Amino acid sequence: MDEPRLDSVPGIRLGTAAAGIKRMDRDDLLVIEMVAGGTTAAVFTRNAFCAAPVVVARENLYRRPRWLLINSGNANAGTGKRGLKDARRCCASLAASAGGTADQVLPFSTGVIGEYLPVGKIEAALLSALQNMTEDAWGRAARAIMTTDTRPKAASRIIDLGSERVTLTGIAKGAGMIQPNMATMLAFIGTDAALSSEALQRCLSEVADLTFNCITVDGDTSTNDACVLLASAVSSVPPIEPGTRAYRRFREGLFEVCGSLAESIVRDGEGATKLIRVVVEQARDESEAREVAKAVAHSPLVKTACFASDPNWGRILAAVGRAPCLELDIGGVAIWLGDVAIVTGGERAPSYSEEAGQEVMNQAEILIRIALGRGPATQTVLTCDLSYDYVRINAEYRT
Amino acid sequence: MDEPRLDSVPGIRLGTAAAGIKRMDRDDLLVIEMVAGGTTAAVFTRNAFCAAPVVVARENLYRRPRWLLINSGNANAGTGKRGLKDARRCCASLAASAGGTADQVLPFSTGVIGEYLPVGKIEAALLSALQNMTEDAWGRAARAIMTTDTRPKAASRIIDLGSERVTLTGIAKGAGMIQPNMATMLAFIGTDAALSSEALQRCLSEVADLTFNCITVDGDTSTNDACVLLASAVSSVPPIEPGTRAYRRFREGLFEVCGSLAESIVRDGEGATKLIRVVVEQARDESEAREVAKAVAHSPLVKTACFASDPNWGRILAAVGRAPCLELDIGGVAIWLGDVAIVTGGERAPSYSEEAGQEVMNQAEILIRIALGRGPATQTVLTCDLSYDYVRINAEYRT
Repeated sequence: MDEPRLDSVPGIRLGTAAAGIKRMDRDDLLVIEMVAGGTTAAVFTRNAFCAAPVVVARENLYRRPRWLLINSGNANAGTGKRGLKDARRCCASLAASAGGTADQVLPFSTGVIGEYLPVGKIEAALLSALQNMTEDAWGRAARAIMTTDTRPKAASRIIDLGSERVTLTGIAKGAGMIQPNMATMLAFIGTDAALSSEALQRCLSEVADLTFNCITVDGDTSTNDACVLLASAVSSVPPIEPGTRAYRRFREGLFEVCGSLAESIVRDGEGATKLIRVVVEQARDESEAREVAKAVAHSPLVKTACFASDPNWGRILAAVGRAPCLELDIGGVAIWLGDVAIVTGGERAPSYSEEAGQEVMNQAEILIRIALGRGPATQTVLTCDLSYDYVRINAEYRT
Repeated sequence: MDEPRLDSVPGIRLGTAAAGIKRMDRDDLLVIEMVAGGTTAAVFTRNAFCAAPVVVARENLYRRPRWLLINSGNANAGTGKRGLKDARRCCASLAASAGGTADQVLPFSTGVIGEYLPVGKIEAALLSALQNMTEDAWGRAARAIMTTDTRPKAASRIIDLGSERVTLTGIAKGAGMIQPNMATMLAFIGTDAALSSEALQRCLSEVADLTFNCITVDGDTSTNDACVLLASAVSSVPPIEPGTRAYRRFREGLFEVCGSLAESIVRDGEGATKLIRVVVEQARDESEAREVAKAVAHSPLVKTACFASDPNWGRILAAVGRAPCLELDIGGVAIWLGDVAIVTGGERAPSYSEEAGQEVMNQAEILIRIALGRGPATQTVLTCDLSYDYVRINAEYRT
């Protein structure tokens, strides 16, 4: 597959190497380096069993990090004290070769849970990754972090700020164990804009909540989810302050990049053959809208019906009905498949025909829209269908 | 398949008929009649889109019902006002033929959602069902209520109360859309014991919560779940009062019958090849124990690993970690696969070997035991694996 076309981010370089962690025939190690003087924001998994690298990355986030060290093929999760020691040792080895300190490195791992990290293999490959660092390696980087992904996921936006411009480029990985709760599996985004650590963190947290936290493949939240935003501050644009027009533009661009990466993850969901967009409108608040959307997006019965292109809308109705939505008056509920009304006033729409429903279900992208008739809030959740291949991929994962 | 051997319940007769609702070649209509003077308890789905028959059955529950009218092949759900009218008309027709009033009938339906009930077909078959009513038709009844079930589900217990005995016999159906929230898909249980309506309801509610509400096949709660307990009061045993030894015996028997029916449902879960028992111990309270058990039991990754007999215990750990368990100290968590310790103190048990884990996973019944180290509460949730056949059955359901 062609690598996506991506814009380089001044002040940020990437290098990859084949450490042979799980497979021999591909890059599985990535180093991202930011010039001194930039800022970093990150959001991490809320899984209580968060992986060792997540613990270390959280600690080091406030020490003005300059390097990200990422490996695929091994998650270094469920590995206890030895896992923490292994993660720290990798950070120290990178720092020693790159000319920094161990606490300036944020480590990330993805792959099998419960096996110890092959530290020696990673150390042996570090130099090679450092030697091939360039600003234009985002595509190569996107491939190095893949596990069950079938294609790299990346996105770029140039943000126009009047007379000047900044760049935002990001990569992500993830195809299974996807119900991010704070961030996606792994996503790394860079910009040459300058923002304070606080502004950058606020912007990323808000945007991740509306993008990565609104997708689900299988309802399983990973132990290793993390999303990092590096701002190298090397552009000539003055620091971007919250509340300004430049901040809104930047946030909008970040939303587009994160939204694009999140959508790529769902499109490449394990075994996915269709993209399903669940939009819930007229909810009391956004949290309610999201809960209802997730009840539909998690339903294996809705997902298998989409796989079969079967307009079995009763399953959508049943999923809405079991959502945690207090005192829902079903008489106010309307549901559409694409533009086709299937439920109005809580029951089958008089105008509904199976043929019209079938036409929507035959498409590769399916829109399910639900109006609750309770308030002003709207939320969208993206998911994919449940196919034989999801079972195959996860039954065979370790063989 | 042989019909299970079941004990008749004095005072309760059952009749079946082939109404041709969805298929022509099998019974799909069941009438259960109780003598006058008995009491009835029921628990129903909490799905907001509860089906028309559930609405009518709820209304009639307090009118001393004498008949249950059950059809498979059509759920009469998502059918609005017409659905209610259809359900009431079937009740009226049965009452007219059987010599009662419409509000003495509780209707139940199971099958496709969103299609109108074929009232004419049901009315035409009613007389035939009434004509073949006998006390020993529990096995035939269990077959008449099946949909995607591959085998009938039934259980009997004789409860010894010193010098006297009462009988408890029950049937159930359900294989998909199984995460009961108040009751299972459909279960009907009869006894010749005498209990007040209040005592019977309390006993059923408590027992259903510990049995039917502790199973899950796919996390989808049906629109039609209902569980009914009929007490004909024709035995010579005096009325059973709460707080007595007889009540505890009766409750224990009901627990065994409901537990057996619930387990049968999971064993026959759509596409199931294995039974998975998730036991959570040392939780702060039962609700927390159940939430953690359900997080594991719902995980498609845990379920596909079981299907593949893969001791991929990292997936169990990840599912525990994403459960809604406030401030979980993972250092206190231990997990076993059967008798094999896989996690102690929040990390891989030093004694764990892949071979030992493999041996447990190869079995047809898999025990996953999780100790949280937080308190005294224990809960068990039963589920099944996720196989290719779950996808096939639900992709092909309406074709």
